[in-house]
Amino acid sequence: MNSLEDILLKRRSIRKYSTEDVDNATLNAVLEMGYRASTTGNMQVYSIIVTRDSEMKKRLAPFHFNQKMIVEAPVTLTFCADFNRFNKWCRMRNAEPGYDNFLSFVTAAIDAVIVAQTVAIAAEAKGLGICYLGTVIYTANEIIKALNLPAGVVPVATITLGFPAEQPEQVDRLPLEAVVHSEVYKDYSAADIDRYYAHKEAQPDSLKYVAENNKETLAQIFTDIRYKKADNEHFSKALLTVLKNQGFLNTGSV
Amino acid sequence: MNSLEDILLKRRSIRKYSTEDVDNATLNAVLEMGYRASTTGNMQVYSIIVTRDSEMKKRLAPFHFNQKMIVEAPVTLTFCADFNRFNKWCRMRNAEPGYDNFLSFVTAAIDAVIVAQTVAIAAEAKGLGICYLGTVIYTANEIIKALNLPAGVVPVATITLGFPAEQPEQVDRLPLEAVVHSEVYKDYSAADIDRYYAHKEAQPDSLKYVAENNKETLAQIFTDIRYKKADNEHFSKALLTVLKNQGFLNTGSV
Repeated sequence: MNSLEDILLKRRSIRKYSTEDVDNATLNAVLEMGYRASTTGNMQVYSIIVTRDSEMKKRLAPFHFNQKMIVEAPVTLTFCADFNRFNKWCRMRNAEPGYDNFLSFVTAAIDAVIVAQTVAIAAEAKGLGICYLGTVIYTANEIIKALNLPAGVVPVATITLGFPAEQPEQVDRLPLEAVVHSEVYKDYSAADIDRYYAHKEAQPDSLKYVAENNKETLAQIFTDIRYKKADNEHFSKALLTVLKNQGFLNTGSV
Repeated sequence: MNSLEDILLKRRSIRKYSTEDVDNATLNAVLEMGYRASTTGNMQVYSIIVTRDSEMKKRLAPFHFNQKMIVEAPVTLTFCADFNRFNKWCRMRNAEPGYDNFLSFVTAAIDAVIVAQTVAIAAEAKGLGICYLGTVIYTANEIIKALNLPAGVVPVATITLGFPAEQPEQVDRLPLEAVVHSEVYKDYSAADIDRYYAHKEAQPDSLKYVAENNKETLAQIFTDIRYKKADNEHFSKALLTVLKNQGFLNTGSV
Protein backbone atom coordinates (compact mmCIF):
# COMPACT_ATOMS: atom_id res chain seq x y z
CA MET A 1 0.00 0.00 0.00
CA ASN A 2 1.06 3.57 -0.68
CA SER A 3 1.05 6.02 2.20
CA LEU A 4 -2.30 7.63 2.79
CA GLU A 5 -0.74 11.08 2.46
CA ASP A 6 0.45 10.15 -1.02
CA ILE A 7 -2.89 8.67 -1.97
CA LEU A 8 -4.94 11.64 -0.82
CA LEU A 9 -2.67 14.45 -1.98
CA LYS A 10 -2.00 12.95 -5.42
CA ARG A 11 -5.42 11.53 -6.07
CA ARG A 12 -7.29 11.87 -9.33
CA SER A 13 -10.44 10.20 -10.64
CA ILE A 14 -9.82 7.31 -13.05
CA ARG A 15 -12.07 6.93 -16.09
CA LYS A 16 -10.10 4.32 -18.08
CA TYR A 17 -9.65 0.87 -16.62
CA SER A 18 -7.46 -2.08 -17.55
CA THR A 19 -9.16 -5.34 -18.49
CA GLU A 20 -7.85 -6.91 -15.26
CA ASP A 21 -10.72 -7.98 -13.05
CA VAL A 22 -11.12 -6.96 -9.42
CA ASP A 23 -11.41 -10.32 -7.71
CA ASN A 24 -13.87 -10.97 -4.91
CA ALA A 25 -11.16 -11.14 -2.26
CA THR A 26 -9.91 -7.65 -3.18
CA LEU A 27 -13.42 -6.23 -3.38
CA ASN A 28 -14.37 -7.75 -0.04
CA ALA A 29 -11.22 -6.39 1.61
CA VAL A 30 -12.11 -2.92 0.31
CA LEU A 31 -15.72 -3.20 1.52
CA GLU A 32 -14.58 -4.49 4.94
CA MET A 33 -12.37 -1.40 5.33
CA GLY A 34 -15.14 0.87 4.10
CA TYR A 35 -17.93 -0.29 6.31
CA ARG A 36 -16.20 0.42 9.62
CA ALA A 37 -16.86 4.10 8.84
CA SER A 38 -18.98 6.26 11.14
CA THR A 39 -22.74 5.72 10.93
CA THR A 40 -25.55 7.57 12.71
CA GLY A 41 -26.34 5.87 16.02
CA ASN A 42 -24.68 2.72 14.65
CA MET A 43 -27.86 2.12 12.64
CA GLN A 44 -26.01 1.46 9.34
CA VAL A 45 -28.93 2.76 7.34
CA TYR A 46 -27.37 2.14 3.94
CA SER A 47 -26.89 -0.66 1.43
CA ILE A 48 -24.28 -1.27 -1.27
CA ILE A 49 -25.25 -2.85 -4.60
CA VAL A 50 -22.38 -4.52 -6.47
CA THR A 51 -22.69 -4.56 -10.28
CA ARG A 52 -20.40 -6.96 -12.19
CA ASP A 53 -22.78 -8.50 -14.75
CA SER A 54 -22.29 -7.04 -18.23
CA GLU A 55 -26.02 -7.14 -19.02
CA MET A 56 -26.75 -5.12 -15.88
CA LYS A 57 -24.02 -2.62 -16.80
CA LYS A 58 -25.63 -2.13 -20.21
CA ARG A 59 -28.99 -1.68 -18.55
CA LEU A 60 -27.62 0.94 -16.14
CA ALA A 61 -25.53 2.76 -18.78
CA PRO A 62 -28.26 5.09 -20.15
CA PHE A 63 -29.20 6.13 -16.59
CA HIS A 64 -25.59 7.28 -16.22
CA PHE A 65 -25.89 9.16 -19.54
CA ASN A 66 -23.79 6.43 -21.24
CA GLN A 67 -20.58 7.49 -19.54
CA LYS A 68 -18.29 4.72 -20.74
CA MET A 69 -16.91 3.91 -17.27
CA ILE A 70 -20.13 2.12 -16.36
CA VAL A 71 -19.61 -0.60 -19.00
CA GLU A 72 -15.80 -0.58 -19.01
CA ALA A 73 -15.09 -0.79 -15.27
CA PRO A 74 -15.12 -4.33 -13.87
CA VAL A 75 -17.16 -3.21 -10.85
CA THR A 76 -19.74 -0.53 -10.18
CA LEU A 77 -20.93 0.15 -6.63
CA THR A 78 -24.23 1.91 -5.94
CA PHE A 79 -24.55 3.25 -2.39
CA CYS A 80 -28.11 3.66 -1.16
CA ALA A 81 -29.79 5.37 1.75
CA ASP A 82 -31.61 2.37 3.24
CA PHE A 83 -34.14 2.34 6.08
CA ASN A 84 -35.87 -0.79 4.72
CA ARG A 85 -33.69 -3.26 6.64
CA PHE A 86 -33.87 -1.23 9.86
CA ASN A 87 -37.66 -0.80 9.59
CA LYS A 88 -38.12 -4.55 9.07
CA TRP A 89 -36.03 -5.24 12.16
CA CYS A 90 -38.07 -2.75 14.22
CA ARG A 91 -41.39 -4.25 13.15
CA MET A 92 -40.20 -7.76 13.98
CA ARG A 93 -39.22 -6.52 17.45
CA ASN A 94 -42.49 -4.87 18.44
CA ALA A 95 -41.08 -1.39 17.74
CA GLU A 96 -42.86 1.09 15.45
CA PRO A 97 -40.31 2.85 13.19
CA GLY A 98 -40.80 6.58 12.59
CA TYR A 99 -38.41 6.91 9.65
CA ASP A 100 -40.76 7.81 6.80
CA ASN A 101 -39.68 11.45 6.71
CA PHE A 102 -37.17 13.84 5.16
CA LEU A 103 -34.80 13.87 8.14
CA SER A 104 -34.48 10.10 7.96
CA PHE A 105 -33.66 10.30 4.26
CA VAL A 106 -30.91 12.85 4.90
CA THR A 107 -29.56 10.78 7.80
CA ALA A 108 -29.41 7.65 5.64
CA ALA A 109 -27.99 9.54 2.64
CA ILE A 110 -25.16 10.92 4.79
CA ASP A 111 -24.48 7.40 6.11
CA ALA A 112 -24.34 6.10 2.53
CA VAL A 113 -21.96 8.83 1.31
CA ILE A 114 -19.65 8.39 4.31
CA VAL A 115 -19.39 4.69 3.46
CA ALA A 116 -18.98 5.42 -0.26
CA GLN A 117 -16.03 7.73 0.32
CA THR A 118 -14.39 5.34 2.79
CA VAL A 119 -14.72 2.53 0.25
CA ALA A 120 -13.30 4.85 -2.43
CA ILE A 121 -10.23 5.66 -0.33
CA ALA A 122 -9.76 1.99 0.66
CA ALA A 123 -9.89 1.07 -3.04
CA GLU A 124 -7.35 3.74 -3.97
CA ALA A 125 -5.08 2.49 -1.21
CA LYS A 126 -5.22 -0.96 -2.85
CA GLY A 127 -4.07 0.51 -6.18
CA LEU A 128 -7.52 0.71 -7.73
CA GLY A 129 -8.93 3.78 -9.45
CA ILE A 130 -12.41 5.14 -8.87
CA CYS A 131 -14.80 7.63 -10.41
CA TYR A 132 -18.03 8.99 -8.95
CA LEU A 133 -21.05 9.10 -11.28
CA GLY A 134 -23.17 12.02 -10.06
CA THR A 135 -25.88 10.94 -12.50
CA VAL A 136 -27.25 8.53 -9.88
CA ILE A 137 -29.26 11.31 -8.24
CA TYR A 138 -30.67 12.45 -11.61
CA THR A 139 -32.10 9.08 -12.59
CA ALA A 140 -32.69 7.52 -9.19
CA ASN A 141 -36.16 6.40 -10.28
CA GLU A 142 -34.81 4.34 -13.19
CA ILE A 143 -31.95 2.94 -11.10
CA ILE A 144 -34.42 1.92 -8.39
CA LYS A 145 -36.29 -0.17 -10.96
CA ALA A 146 -33.15 -1.71 -12.46
CA LEU A 147 -31.74 -2.70 -9.06
CA ASN A 148 -35.11 -3.74 -7.54
CA LEU A 149 -34.81 -1.28 -4.66
CA PRO A 150 -37.81 -1.51 -2.31
CA ALA A 151 -39.52 1.35 -0.44
CA GLY A 152 -37.16 2.95 2.08
CA VAL A 153 -34.18 2.67 -0.29
CA VAL A 154 -32.82 5.49 -2.51
CA PRO A 155 -29.50 5.40 -4.43
CA VAL A 156 -27.33 8.44 -3.65
CA ALA A 157 -23.78 7.68 -4.83
CA THR A 158 -22.27 5.50 -7.54
CA ILE A 159 -18.59 4.74 -8.09
CA THR A 160 -16.91 2.74 -10.81
CA LEU A 161 -13.90 0.72 -9.76
CA GLY A 162 -11.00 -0.97 -11.53
CA PHE A 163 -7.27 -1.00 -12.09
CA PRO A 164 -6.19 2.23 -13.81
CA ALA A 165 -5.31 2.24 -17.51
CA GLU A 166 -4.53 5.95 -17.47
CA GLN A 167 -2.58 8.35 -15.29
CA PRO A 168 -4.33 11.67 -15.91
CA GLU A 169 -3.03 15.01 -14.73
CA GLN A 170 -4.36 16.07 -11.39
CA VAL A 171 -7.16 18.58 -11.92
CA ASP A 172 -7.05 22.07 -10.45
CA ARG A 173 -8.59 23.02 -7.11
CA LEU A 174 -9.39 26.41 -5.62
CA PRO A 175 -6.79 27.44 -3.04
CA LEU A 176 -7.53 25.80 0.32
CA GLU A 177 -8.17 29.22 1.90
CA ALA A 178 -11.05 29.72 -0.56
CA VAL A 179 -13.09 26.92 1.04
CA VAL A 180 -12.04 27.22 4.71
CA HIS A 181 -13.48 29.81 7.11
CA SER A 182 -12.28 30.59 10.61
CA GLU A 183 -15.00 30.77 13.31
CA VAL A 184 -17.62 32.43 11.08
CA TYR A 185 -18.32 32.41 7.36
CA LYS A 186 -16.40 35.21 5.70
CA ASP A 187 -18.46 36.12 2.67
CA TYR A 188 -16.59 36.68 -0.59
CA SER A 189 -15.82 40.12 -1.99
CA ALA A 190 -15.50 40.60 -5.74
CA ALA A 191 -11.73 40.75 -5.24
CA ASP A 192 -11.80 37.42 -3.37
CA ILE A 193 -13.72 35.75 -6.20
CA ASP A 194 -11.32 37.13 -8.82
CA ARG A 195 -8.31 35.96 -6.84
CA TYR A 196 -9.64 32.50 -5.95
CA TYR A 197 -10.88 31.63 -9.44
CA ALA A 198 -7.93 33.10 -11.41
CA HIS A 199 -5.95 29.87 -11.51
CA LYS A 200 -8.93 27.78 -12.57
CA GLU A 201 -9.91 30.25 -15.30
CA ALA A 202 -6.34 30.31 -16.67
CA GLN A 203 -6.08 26.50 -17.06
CA PRO A 204 -5.48 25.46 -20.70
CA ASP A 205 -8.51 23.16 -20.55
CA SER A 206 -10.70 25.97 -19.28
CA LEU A 207 -9.62 28.29 -22.10
CA LYS A 208 -10.18 25.49 -24.62
CA TYR A 209 -13.75 24.76 -23.41
CA VAL A 210 -14.64 28.46 -23.54
CA ALA A 211 -13.26 28.86 -27.08
CA GLU A 212 -14.74 25.61 -28.43
CA ASN A 213 -18.19 26.45 -27.14
CA ASN A 214 -18.10 30.10 -28.19
CA LYS A 215 -18.65 31.26 -24.63
CA GLU A 216 -17.37 34.41 -22.96
CA THR A 217 -16.45 32.89 -19.60
CA LEU A 218 -15.74 29.55 -17.92
CA ALA A 219 -18.72 30.11 -15.61
CA GLN A 220 -20.99 30.06 -18.70
CA ILE A 221 -19.72 26.54 -19.46
CA PHE A 222 -21.30 25.50 -16.17
CA THR A 223 -24.52 27.52 -16.33
CA ASP A 224 -25.24 27.17 -20.08
CA ILE A 225 -23.88 23.69 -20.89
CA ARG A 226 -22.92 21.42 -18.02
CA TYR A 227 -25.34 22.21 -15.18
CA LYS A 228 -28.27 24.10 -16.66
CA LYS A 229 -31.14 25.57 -14.65
CA ALA A 230 -33.84 23.76 -16.67
CA ASP A 231 -32.11 20.39 -16.18
CA ASN A 232 -31.59 21.04 -12.48
CA GLU A 233 -35.27 21.89 -12.08
CA HIS A 234 -36.31 18.80 -14.02
CA PHE A 235 -34.12 16.51 -11.93
CA SER A 236 -35.13 18.25 -8.68
CA LYS A 237 -38.74 17.34 -9.37
CA ALA A 238 -37.75 13.78 -10.30
CA LEU A 239 -35.69 13.33 -7.13
CA LEU A 240 -38.40 14.71 -4.84
CA THR A 241 -40.89 12.35 -6.51
CA VAL A 242 -38.50 9.49 -5.79
CA LEU A 243 -38.32 10.47 -2.10
CA LYS A 244 -42.11 10.56 -1.98
CA ASN A 245 -42.49 7.21 -3.76
CA GLN A 246 -39.86 5.53 -1.62
CA GLY A 247 -41.63 6.68 1.55
CA PHE A 248 -39.45 9.51 2.83
CA LEU A 249 -41.96 12.37 2.60
CA ASN A 250 -44.88 10.70 4.38
CA THR A 251 -44.70 12.87 7.49
CA GLY A 252 -42.95 15.98 8.74
CA SER A 253 -42.82 17.71 5.35
CA VAL A 254 -43.51 21.41 4.88
CA MET B 1 1.49 7.24 9.90
CA ASN B 2 -0.23 3.92 10.52
CA SER B 3 -1.21 1.84 7.52
CA LEU B 4 -4.56 2.77 6.09
CA GLU B 5 -5.77 -0.82 6.46
CA ASP B 6 -5.06 -0.60 10.18
CA ILE B 7 -6.74 2.76 10.50
CA LEU B 8 -9.91 1.78 8.68
CA LEU B 9 -10.35 -1.73 10.07
CA LYS B 10 -9.66 -0.75 13.68
CA ARG B 11 -11.36 2.62 13.69
CA ARG B 12 -13.65 3.86 16.41
CA SER B 13 -15.12 7.29 17.13
CA ILE B 14 -13.32 9.25 19.84
CA ARG B 15 -15.37 11.27 22.33
CA LYS B 16 -12.68 12.10 24.93
CA TYR B 17 -9.78 14.30 23.89
CA SER B 18 -6.46 15.16 25.53
CA THR B 19 -5.77 18.80 26.33
CA GLU B 20 -3.08 18.84 23.62
CA ASP B 21 -3.96 21.36 20.94
CA VAL B 22 -4.12 20.53 17.23
CA ASP B 23 -1.75 23.11 15.79
CA ASN B 24 -2.49 24.97 12.57
CA ALA B 25 0.17 23.09 10.62
CA THR B 26 -1.41 19.74 11.50
CA LEU B 27 -4.93 20.98 10.80
CA ASN B 28 -3.89 22.46 7.46
CA ALA B 29 -2.12 19.24 6.45
CA VAL B 30 -5.32 17.33 7.22
CA LEU B 31 -7.49 19.79 5.27
CA GLU B 32 -5.06 19.74 2.30
CA MET B 33 -5.39 15.94 2.16
CA GLY B 34 -9.16 16.14 2.54
CA TYR B 35 -9.93 18.65 -0.12
CA ARG B 36 -8.40 16.70 -3.03
CA ALA B 37 -11.46 14.44 -2.71
CA SER B 38 -13.89 14.01 -5.60
CA THR B 39 -16.30 16.89 -6.17
CA THR B 40 -19.15 17.18 -8.68
CA GLY B 41 -17.87 18.69 -11.93
CA ASN B 42 -14.93 20.11 -9.95
CA MET B 43 -17.28 22.81 -8.65
CA GLN B 44 -16.23 22.37 -5.00
CA VAL B 45 -19.64 23.45 -3.80
CA TYR B 46 -18.86 23.19 -0.10
CA SER B 47 -17.23 25.19 2.68
CA ILE B 48 -15.55 24.17 5.92
CA ILE B 49 -15.96 26.28 9.08
CA VAL B 50 -13.22 25.82 11.69
CA THR B 51 -14.24 26.37 15.32
CA ARG B 52 -11.45 26.86 17.87
CA ASP B 53 -12.74 29.75 19.95
CA SER B 54 -14.12 28.64 23.31
CA GLU B 55 -16.92 31.21 23.27
CA MET B 56 -18.06 29.92 19.89
CA LYS B 57 -17.92 26.32 21.18
CA LYS B 58 -20.18 27.31 24.09
CA ARG B 59 -22.55 29.02 21.69
CA LEU B 60 -22.72 25.94 19.44
CA ALA B 61 -22.98 23.42 22.32
CA PRO B 62 -26.78 23.57 22.84
CA PHE B 63 -27.36 23.10 19.11
CA HIS B 64 -25.42 19.86 19.45
CA PHE B 65 -27.60 18.92 22.45
CA ASN B 66 -24.67 19.73 24.78
CA GLN B 67 -22.66 16.70 23.76
CA LYS B 68 -19.45 17.39 25.66
CA MET B 69 -17.17 16.80 22.65
CA ILE B 70 -18.13 20.17 21.23
CA VAL B 71 -16.57 22.11 24.12
CA GLU B 72 -13.82 19.62 24.98
CA ALA B 73 -12.34 18.98 21.53
CA PRO B 74 -9.73 21.55 20.45
CA VAL B 75 -11.26 21.79 16.98
CA THR B 76 -14.74 21.41 15.54
CA LEU B 77 -15.25 21.37 11.76
CA THR B 78 -18.63 22.13 10.21
CA PHE B 79 -18.95 21.05 6.58
CA CYS B 80 -21.52 22.96 4.56
CA ALA B 81 -23.22 22.52 1.22
CA ASP B 82 -22.23 25.86 -0.39
CA PHE B 83 -23.43 27.30 -3.69
CA ASN B 84 -22.95 30.89 -2.50
CA ARG B 85 -19.33 31.17 -3.67
CA PHE B 86 -20.06 29.48 -7.00
CA ASN B 87 -23.14 31.64 -7.62
CA LYS B 88 -21.15 34.82 -6.91
CA TRP B 89 -18.49 33.72 -9.39
CA CYS B 90 -21.14 32.99 -12.04
CA ARG B 91 -22.83 36.38 -11.61
CA MET B 92 -19.48 38.19 -11.86
CA ARG B 93 -18.80 36.32 -15.11
CA ASN B 94 -22.03 37.12 -16.93
CA ALA B 95 -23.43 33.66 -16.25
CA GLU B 96 -26.85 33.13 -14.61
CA PRO B 97 -26.65 30.35 -12.01
CA GLY B 98 -29.57 27.89 -11.85
CA TYR B 99 -28.73 26.34 -8.50
CA ASP B 100 -31.65 27.42 -6.32
CA ASN B 101 -33.24 23.99 -6.31
CA PHE B 102 -33.34 20.68 -4.44
CA LEU B 103 -30.97 18.86 -6.83
CA SER B 104 -28.32 21.50 -6.25
CA PHE B 105 -28.68 21.13 -2.48
CA VAL B 106 -28.23 17.36 -2.71
CA THR B 107 -25.24 17.79 -5.06
CA ALA B 108 -23.57 20.22 -2.67
CA ALA B 109 -24.44 18.14 0.40
CA ILE B 110 -22.81 15.07 -1.17
CA ASP B 111 -19.73 17.16 -2.00
CA ALA B 112 -19.58 18.35 1.62
CA VAL B 113 -19.92 14.84 3.09
CA ILE B 114 -17.28 13.42 0.72
CA VAL B 115 -14.86 16.11 1.91
CA ALA B 116 -15.87 15.59 5.56
CA GLN B 117 -15.12 11.88 5.46
CA THR B 118 -11.82 12.39 3.62
CA VAL B 119 -10.78 14.94 6.25
CA ALA B 120 -11.87 12.50 8.97
CA ILE B 121 -9.71 9.70 7.55
CA ALA B 122 -6.76 12.06 7.01
CA ALA B 123 -7.08 13.16 10.64
CA GLU B 124 -7.19 9.58 11.88
CA ALA B 125 -4.11 8.78 9.80
CA LYS B 126 -2.31 11.61 11.67
CA GLY B 127 -3.18 10.04 15.03
CA LEU B 128 -6.15 12.28 15.74
CA GLY B 129 -9.55 11.04 16.84
CA ILE B 130 -12.84 12.24 15.41
CA CYS B 131 -16.54 12.05 16.17
CA TYR B 132 -19.45 13.02 13.91
CA LEU B 133 -22.21 15.09 15.48
CA GLY B 134 -25.38 14.19 13.58
CA THR B 135 -27.18 16.96 15.45
CA VAL B 136 -26.03 19.46 12.81
CA ILE B 137 -28.94 18.55 10.53
CA TYR B 138 -31.45 18.89 13.40
CA THR B 139 -30.50 22.43 14.33
CA ALA B 140 -29.15 23.71 11.02
CA ASN B 141 -31.18 26.91 11.41
CA GLU B 142 -29.49 27.83 14.70
CA ILE B 143 -26.04 26.84 13.42
CA ILE B 144 -26.56 28.99 10.32
CA LYS B 145 -27.13 31.99 12.60
CA ALA B 146 -24.17 31.23 14.87
CA LEU B 147 -21.75 30.75 11.97
CA ASN B 148 -23.18 33.62 9.84
CA LEU B 149 -23.94 31.33 6.90
CA PRO B 150 -25.44 33.27 3.97
CA ALA B 151 -28.12 32.08 1.53
CA GLY B 152 -26.88 29.15 -0.54
CA VAL B 153 -25.09 27.60 2.45
CA VAL B 154 -26.43 24.76 4.68
CA PRO B 155 -24.39 22.83 7.28
CA VAL B 156 -24.63 19.05 6.74
CA ALA B 157 -21.82 17.42 8.75
CA THR B 158 -19.90 18.30 11.90
CA ILE B 159 -16.88 16.51 13.31
CA THR B 160 -14.96 17.14 16.50
CA LEU B 161 -11.22 16.62 16.30
CA GLY B 162 -8.41 16.15 18.81
CA PHE B 163 -5.82 13.78 20.19
CA PRO B 164 -7.54 10.77 21.82
CA ALA B 165 -7.72 10.50 25.62
CA GLU B 166 -9.57 7.19 25.43
CA GLN B 167 -9.25 3.93 23.53
CA PRO B 168 -12.81 2.63 23.47
CA GLU B 169 -13.80 -0.84 22.34
CA GLN B 170 -14.72 -1.02 18.71
CA VAL B 171 -18.50 -1.06 18.40
CA ASP B 172 -20.37 -3.87 16.70
CA ARG B 173 -21.37 -3.86 13.04
CA LEU B 174 -23.83 -6.01 11.12
CA PRO B 175 -22.05 -8.71 9.10
CA LEU B 176 -20.77 -7.26 5.81
CA GLU B 177 -23.12 -9.54 3.85
CA ALA B 178 -26.08 -7.83 5.56
CA VAL B 179 -25.38 -4.53 3.79
CA VAL B 180 -23.98 -5.74 0.43
CA HIS B 181 -26.19 -6.96 -2.43
CA SER B 182 -25.04 -8.64 -5.64
CA GLU B 183 -26.56 -7.23 -8.88
CA VAL B 184 -30.01 -6.57 -7.43
CA TYR B 185 -31.33 -5.79 -3.96
CA LYS B 186 -32.13 -9.00 -2.15
CA ASP B 187 -34.89 -8.10 0.27
CA TYR B 188 -34.63 -9.46 3.80
CA SER B 189 -36.63 -12.42 5.04
CA ALA B 190 -37.55 -12.69 8.73
CA ALA B 191 -34.81 -15.31 9.07
CA ASP B 192 -32.27 -12.91 7.50
CA ILE B 193 -33.20 -10.16 9.97
CA ASP B 194 -32.94 -12.55 12.93
CA ARG B 195 -29.55 -13.80 11.76
CA TYR B 196 -28.05 -10.39 10.89
CA TYR B 197 -29.16 -8.63 14.09
CA ALA B 198 -28.42 -11.51 16.51
CA HIS B 199 -24.88 -10.36 17.32
CA LYS B 200 -25.94 -6.74 17.87
CA GLU B 201 -28.84 -7.74 20.12
CA ALA B 202 -26.60 -9.99 22.22
CA GLN B 203 -24.02 -7.28 22.96
CA PRO B 204 -23.72 -6.58 26.73
CA ASP B 205 -24.37 -2.86 26.09
CA SER B 206 -27.52 -3.66 24.14
CA LEU B 207 -28.86 -5.88 26.91
CA LYS B 208 -28.00 -3.19 29.47
CA TYR B 209 -29.85 -0.41 27.57
CA VAL B 210 -32.92 -2.60 27.20
CA ALA B 211 -32.96 -3.50 30.90
CA GLU B 212 -32.21 0.03 32.17
CA ASN B 213 -34.98 1.52 30.07
CA ASN B 214 -37.54 -1.19 30.82
CA LYS B 215 -37.91 -2.00 27.14
CA GLU B 216 -38.68 -5.35 25.56
CA THR B 217 -36.28 -5.11 22.62
CA LEU B 218 -33.21 -3.19 21.42
CA ALA B 219 -35.22 -1.87 18.47
CA GLN B 220 -37.50 -0.08 20.97
CA ILE B 221 -34.46 1.80 22.29
CA PHE B 222 -34.19 3.35 18.82
CA THR B 223 -37.88 3.94 18.09
CA ASP B 224 -38.99 4.99 21.59
CA ILE B 225 -35.92 6.80 22.96
CA ARG B 226 -33.09 7.65 20.58
CA TYR B 227 -34.76 8.38 17.22
CA LYS B 228 -38.43 9.00 17.85
CA LYS B 229 -41.03 9.59 15.15
CA ALA B 230 -42.25 12.88 16.66
CA ASP B 231 -38.69 14.24 16.84
CA ASN B 232 -37.92 13.09 13.31
CA GLU B 233 -41.05 14.83 12.05
CA HIS B 234 -40.22 18.00 13.94
CA PHE B 235 -36.67 18.12 12.59
CA SER B 236 -37.81 17.19 9.08
CA LYS B 237 -39.98 20.31 9.01
CA ALA B 238 -37.16 22.40 10.43
CA LEU B 239 -34.66 21.13 7.85
CA LEU B 240 -37.02 21.66 4.92
CA THR B 241 -37.65 25.20 6.18
CA VAL B 242 -33.88 25.73 6.25
CA LEU B 243 -33.58 24.56 2.62
CA LYS B 244 -36.35 26.97 1.67
CA ASN B 245 -34.85 29.89 3.60
CA GLN B 246 -31.37 29.25 2.23
CA GLY B 247 -32.70 29.29 -1.33
CA PHE B 248 -32.68 25.61 -2.32
CA LEU B 249 -36.42 25.13 -2.90
CA ASN B 250 -37.06 28.12 -5.16
CA THR B 251 -37.64 26.14 -8.31
CA GLY B 252 -38.12 22.55 -9.40
CA SER B 253 -39.91 21.43 -6.25
CA VAL B 254 -42.95 19.16 -6.27
